[in-house]
Amino acid sequence: MKTLLLTAALAAGFAFSSHAQTSAAMSDAEAFQKGTFQGATADLAHYNAVYQLDSDDPKLIQQTLRNLSNALEDTRLKGKITIELVAFANGTAVFRKDQPYEAQLTALKQKGVILAQCLNTIRERKISKDELLPIISYVPSGNGELIIRQAQGWALVHP
Amino acid sequence: MKTLLLTAALAAGFAFSSHAQTSAAMSDAEAFQKGTFQGATADLAHYNAVYQLDSDDPKLIQQTLRNLSNALEDTRLKGKITIELVAFANGTAVFRKDQPYEAQLTALKQKGVILAQCLNTIRERKISKDELLPIISYVPSGNGELIIRQAQGWALVHP
Amino acid sequence: MKTLLLTAALAAGFAFSSHAQTSAAMSDAEAFQKGTFQGATADLAHYNAVYQLDSDDPKLIQQTLRNLSNALEDTRLKGKITIELVAFANGTAVFRKDQPYEAQLTALKQKGVILAQCLNTIRERKISKDELLPIISYVPSGNGELIIRQAQGWALVHP
Repeated sequence: MKTLLLTAALAAGFAFSSHAQTSAAMSDAEAFQKGTFQGATADLAHYNAVYQLDSDDPKLIQQTLRNLSNALEDTRLKGKITIELVAFANGTAVFRKDQPYEAQLTALKQKGVILAQCLNTIRERKISKDELLPIISYVPSGNGELIIRQAQGWALVHP
Repeated sequence: MKTLLLTAALAAGFAFSSHAQTSAAMSDAEAFQKGTFQGATADLAHYNAVYQLDSDDPKLIQQTLRNLSNALEDTRLKGKITIELVAFANGTAVFRKDQPYEAQLTALKQKGVILAQCLNTIRERKISKDELLPIISYVPSGNGELIIRQAQGWALVHP
Repeated sequence: MKTLLLTAALAAGFAFSSHAQTSAAMSDAEAFQKGTFQGATADLAHYNAVYQLDSDDPKLIQQTLRNLSNALEDTRLKGKITIELVAFANGTAVFRKDQPYEAQLTALKQKGVILAQCLNTIRERKISKDELLPIISYVPSGNGELIIRQAQGWALVHP
């Protein structure tokens, strides 16, 4: 009997979870029509996001770092989000010693942000690790990292 | 006995679901090789997508609105998709009263699309809500919204 | 009794799966702080990714094709990833006969990559299928394809 209840609860849990998501989307849409929508509700215990940086445009780099900080400070996510910044292709500029981002990146690392550089890019472009900040880590490929992270349930942000 | 069957069915359901997804991807790949692939199959009861707009380039804004309409009209999704358009950074332009998008946005709202503006952006850029269309809603941060929506299972589209 | 154990195992499995993901994110963050992080771990049997191409900038097209190849060759994903390249809007250029991408696309198709063109785009722009390479397939809308694929658990990559 206990088993039956547990099983039924379990089954109901999944049905509820799926139904709840559709309902949540619909009630957000209704709230928006009424003018009372104030953003999606963050009811999970923890969130993860991977930020993609593949441009060396200083404006876009600054916007990416600012966006990332805004996500860390969003009242809905503060204290319960892990973020990884993945740089590849031209985006490698953000980690170069001769670029002006070291202070911002160090501050982000102190807040727990993972700083990851694509190894494929530095191999293809013959960039030495000595040209990049020592505070970063390396991943086999930036694209592989984006794909595996999403399969793990991480959100993607590409400013 | 009933319990055992229910439990087994439940377990099989999950195994099937995971296996089915891998099989679906593989049979789509096979169909493509044979020249018979016609697009992914939409077998869910409902879909949700969040559109990211962070540019004030008029061409990109128009493309985003057109893309969004195409998704609403896609025969596979029509009548079973909820879409939220999230504007932040330069993308705030789409919601400005002095820009030419009011008619298109009103039509999208009538079709159920949620129109959401990042509060961080207007605070940082000292933009008054009076400068923006009254038909929109506000969210704490555009990036937080993108992250929470994806964690809720929404698809991301960034034209 | 068997049932109880099976049910408990099932329940524990889900709790573990959710807990394991949060733990994985946290231990990656810790490894990064210690300087031992080497990229996300790919412990699934199979991965799927959809690549979005909506630009006719030759540099971006080349980067997209290179990125896609890098993902296929990432040591973590090699032999266990299905990729679909979806072209729409200006991105349709990649599939034009008068553009120089046929050899690269044929090689990708031989590696199992799905090449999908948005039908909406060619209808709106009055592009004939005769102008495009015969090796591709067509999907109702590029945006619908991106949304359905993500709902199926595919990762999105937009170079």
